[in-house]
Amino acid sequence: MEHPPRDDIRLEAVLHALSDPMRMSVVSTLATAREELSCSLFDLPVSKSTTTHHFRVLRESGVIQQVYRGTAKMNGLRRTDLDALFPGLLESVLTAAGRQASRLGDA
Amino acid sequence: MEHPPRDDIRLEAVLHALSDPMRMSVVSTLATAREELSCSLFDLPVSKSTTTHHFRVLRESGVIQQVYRGTAKMNGLRRTDLDALFPGLLESVLTAAGRQASRLGDA
Repeated sequence: MEHPPRDDIRLEAVLHALSDPMRMSVVSTLATAREELSCSLFDLPVSKSTTTHHFRVLRESGVIQQVYRGTAKMNGLRRTDLDALFPGLLESVLTAAGRQASRLGDA
Repeated sequence: MEHPPRDDIRLEAVLHALSDPMRMSVVSTLATAREELSCSLFDLPVSKSTTTHHFRVLRESGVIQQVYRGTAKMNGLRRTDLDALFPGLLESVLTAAGRQASRLGDA
């Protein structure tokens, strides 16, 4: 699986990846877990191929890293890379998503 | 011109609006100016209709407000609304855009 090296991560791609509510919920879950989570743990209300697409967008934009551990595809946030490139960005987006979910009664 | 009231502004729409480099450059310019700027001041390297489209996406997502002053269409950032809904988000995105532009030699 291809991952962009840190220097190739672009703000516009990261913002695009985060601009989808389903992808944002994956990122929020990973941020809360603070550990790698298996793809199979995410039960998104979309088809398997759409789920795979969302994870690919997150990976190709540099937001998450994906590795196989045995047969499980594990996902982790690229916090260190994102914080180095865009200090405070990930945190403020996560906070904004949490506040919006509370405000709209989704959480 | 329609503008979403503050309560209808959604994080995903804001992130989508900011995920385009051309729109991000408009937002950065407005943030630096700290005043309303006329559309005609922005000389984007795209057609007039594409420029209009970008401004509409920014307006409909709640990132900017547009008002006619005489014959000029003036644009301003909705800083107060965005900061109230998503504290720190706009600032961290602006900082990230500035850092990336410096890093890539665009600024």
